[in-house]
Amino acid sequence: MSNPEESQHVNFLNLRRMGIDTHQEPVIYMRQDCYVCRAEGFEAHSRINVCTGSHSIIATVNMVTTDILSHQEVGLSESAWRLLEASEGEKATFSHAKPAESMTYVRGKIYGTPLSPRSATDIINDIANGNYSDIQLASFVTSCAGNRLNTNEIISLTKAMVACGSQLDWGREQVMDKHCVGGLPGNRTTPIVVAIVAASGLIMPKTSSRAITSPAGTADTMETLTPVNLSLETMRSVVEKEGGCIAWGGSVSLSPADDILIRIEKALDLDSEGQLVASVISKKIAAGSTDVLIDIPIGATAKVRSMNYGRKLAKQLVKTGEALGIRVNILFSDGSQPVGHGIGPALEARDIIHVLKNHHHGPQDLRDRATTIAGEILEMGHAAPKGEGKRLAEHKITSGEAWTKFQAICEAQGGLKEPPRAAHTHCIRAGRAGIICYINNRVIAKLAKLAGAPAAPAAGLDFHVKLGDKVDPETPLFTIHSDAPGELQYAINFLEDHPNAVSIEEECI
Amino acid sequence: MSNPEESQHVNFLNLRRMGIDTHQEPVIYMRQDCYVCRAEGFEAHSRINVCTGSHSIIATVNMVTTDILSHQEVGLSESAWRLLEASEGEKATFSHAKPAESMTYVRGKIYGTPLSPRSATDIINDIANGNYSDIQLASFVTSCAGNRLNTNEIISLTKAMVACGSQLDWGREQVMDKHCVGGLPGNRTTPIVVAIVAASGLIMPKTSSRAITSPAGTADTMETLTPVNLSLETMRSVVEKEGGCIAWGGSVSLSPADDILIRIEKALDLDSEGQLVASVISKKIAAGSTDVLIDIPIGATAKVRSMNYGRKLAKQLVKTGEALGIRVNILFSDGSQPVGHGIGPALEARDIIHVLKNHHHGPQDLRDRATTIAGEILEMGHAAPKGEGKRLAEHKITSGEAWTKFQAICEAQGGLKEPPRAAHTHCIRAGRAGIICYINNRVIAKLAKLAGAPAAPAAGLDFHVKLGDKVDPETPLFTIHSDAPGELQYAINFLEDHPNAVSIEEECI
Repeated sequence: MSNPEESQHVNFLNLRRMGIDTHQEPVIYMRQDCYVCRAEGFEAHSRINVCTGSHSIIATVNMVTTDILSHQEVGLSESAWRLLEASEGEKATFSHAKPAESMTYVRGKIYGTPLSPRSATDIINDIANGNYSDIQLASFVTSCAGNRLNTNEIISLTKAMVACGSQLDWGREQVMDKHCVGGLPGNRTTPIVVAIVAASGLIMPKTSSRAITSPAGTADTMETLTPVNLSLETMRSVVEKEGGCIAWGGSVSLSPADDILIRIEKALDLDSEGQLVASVISKKIAAGSTDVLIDIPIGATAKVRSMNYGRKLAKQLVKTGEALGIRVNILFSDGSQPVGHGIGPALEARDIIHVLKNHHHGPQDLRDRATTIAGEILEMGHAAPKGEGKRLAEHKITSGEAWTKFQAICEAQGGLKEPPRAAHTHCIRAGRAGIICYINNRVIAKLAKLAGAPAAPAAGLDFHVKLGDKVDPETPLFTIHSDAPGELQYAINFLEDHPNAVSIEEECI
Repeated sequence: MSNPEESQHVNFLNLRRMGIDTHQEPVIYMRQDCYVCRAEGFEAHSRINVCTGSHSIIATVNMVTTDILSHQEVGLSESAWRLLEASEGEKATFSHAKPAESMTYVRGKIYGTPLSPRSATDIINDIANGNYSDIQLASFVTSCAGNRLNTNEIISLTKAMVACGSQLDWGREQVMDKHCVGGLPGNRTTPIVVAIVAASGLIMPKTSSRAITSPAGTADTMETLTPVNLSLETMRSVVEKEGGCIAWGGSVSLSPADDILIRIEKALDLDSEGQLVASVISKKIAAGSTDVLIDIPIGATAKVRSMNYGRKLAKQLVKTGEALGIRVNILFSDGSQPVGHGIGPALEARDIIHVLKNHHHGPQDLRDRATTIAGEILEMGHAAPKGEGKRLAEHKITSGEAWTKFQAICEAQGGLKEPPRAAHTHCIRAGRAGIICYINNRVIAKLAKLAGAPAAPAAGLDFHVKLGDKVDPETPLFTIHSDAPGELQYAINFLEDHPNAVSIEEECI
């Protein structure tokens, strides 16, 4: 028998940055005819270990058959380059990656074996360590979707997610937080709520996400006004000084596994309720929150379509919170139509500023929702007597205290700026007379995404009507904003295929 | 409003072959700062339409931030290059791909809505047309796995798969076929069965698959003996002349959607029973078969682990066959241990030749299985009286007719050759005295795959013992064959982690 060790000594190649952005999955470009490839028997899509002196990652191989690489070189995608903290020409060794053993549990789950604390931990650790390929992640996400996680599984998953990330400690007895289950375009209450709550003397160090399947997440919207990629130190100093902040959760790496799962859920346009609960609660625990208000909009085309399902979700959120030692209150709200005027980061930011400034352009529905939520939080935090929260929250806006606090928070985060404006717009008119009877949130959200939101922060929709409004054929329904003509045209084409985004009838039934 | 058409006229780039093998998913490498990218608002992982004058595909974008491409160039992966039938420097235009609308049905399926004939057709057509990304494919495969397809859904899926591929017509009343549900390493009866059946005057134009999750498929094994990538014309002339053939099903593109799904199932190591039934029956219909014998090995570590599940699968296979107008007979067989000696393409080919030559090295179990299956087929095809099939099949081997027919078939397919031998071998010995009580087919299969099978055709295992054999510490259990020292070592490491691949006890219980 030959000695299998003999190849180990020359099993290295020089790293080269290819400048190819593969969108997070680390990819290695290797010549099919290089020594390492032949000795190790790699083939396209092999999962391999790449080790430099100081770092090690698992990556997917793409084979190279041309001279874009020399025989001594191996190319790295941008994510592989980042994860390896590589430098040009650095040496690395390569070996077959052990198959992620926890995929056995994923297969078990697909065949009906519930996740245990042990299997959830193994899966989440493998995911956080980058041991799953994109299709393995897609399989795991799918296996948990469609009500396939019971409360115990959700609790196990949540604990595993908390355990594999870092956890903040604010040294306070009560740390307030909120979350919205989403699905309602333009429902951007968080910046207003944080300003009111912090202006009332409570602590609210808010970490928000970027969009998963929506045209904007709070982090995307806030980013058009002020920096949100805060280091933990910056976040601490902002909260120390102002009592609140609005930071992107990902930049403080609170739940690394969740961030990876969210990318796949986004690509599949799939929100699993179990993973939603685990994602929300794990991020709240990691953020060091003790009291969380969760807003669940209910509507035929919102994420939660029925009160029945809403109650089920609420129960899981409260129970999972309890199991992990935090208090969760639920607020059900109307989810029948978009909130405010703007849909998309910059357009929503404009609405927020109008409300905070107590400006007559500020959308009443957005203001009403924000003060209801803030009011509940003020009561949870004993800053307002039971039943008085909403009134106090309203007062913080009319008195200008909320706006002053918001400006101070943005200043502390790095400065308040003007949101960008889109280069191209196109107004969609009613086309007939009647009453606005129905708005499809999902089609509207998709339209805003096709227009470029959230990647293009100025893109999205500006809504000019609400349910029940009377319109003439010439009444503008909404304006599409876009940075690129291709995207604008694409949104228009999509609207032509989906004419029922907004229904106008003679009489609403 | 600006004119969104204005960019259309300059929306082209020159194609360049990157020589990067992304393993089937077509990928486009585009400079982030090129005009097309900015105008269309593409980002990493966007799904885009690429159109040349004559062809059009959907591909995933990887962004390029370095000078490996000029501003006028766009790079293509090998699969994108192949699908586009591109030539160097050819011009192409780019636009956002419409989202695959049928993903709505996949999401519905995840949430419990059964597939309808309509949704199955839309999904399968989108898959066959390359409209699904790898993670969308993984999500669809997972949503159907774990007993989540009922018989009606399986029939819909099967019909959709048949409809989107080509279908052969042999102009005969009876066209014989077989299939094995797999999971049993080394169970390579097909080449022997085809030789016997064709030598008995029946028609058996066999299309076989490559390995899905096993160390070898029949096509992989046969390829070490003779060409199997036959064009439809070659296949016809071989069958015309010899009454049988053993071709790779993929080369005649009988079920393009199935081939794509199988690639993902392989990467996930996931066999869904519903997709298994749809895959098997659709390929049989497409191959023009009328009478199919399906072998289902049952064993604790075979693909089918219990007789109960075997019966359920059998019922679905028979019913789906009926619904599509073919006759399916089922044969249950013992699935407790590997069949023959060799596991892996070349090592299995050697066993087949020994059996066909009536050589005393020919493994008795492989011969016995092959003649049982062939016997059943002879009876189904009225070439043997009821109860006489097996005896006639045995006679075809002892008389030399089967070997003569096999040689003639290989000659017609392009010539019979010697299977390759591996460069490295390593013998695993019993290590203790006792009786072989248990062999784990799954661990054994994985071991053969780690050794390099089926990508390296000479790689795999050569088994020297069977269940019930008495062994000494020095008795060889099996020999690992490998082309690359890295792979050999990797298989040895895996075996050290899984010492129970073969269990030796003082007495079997």
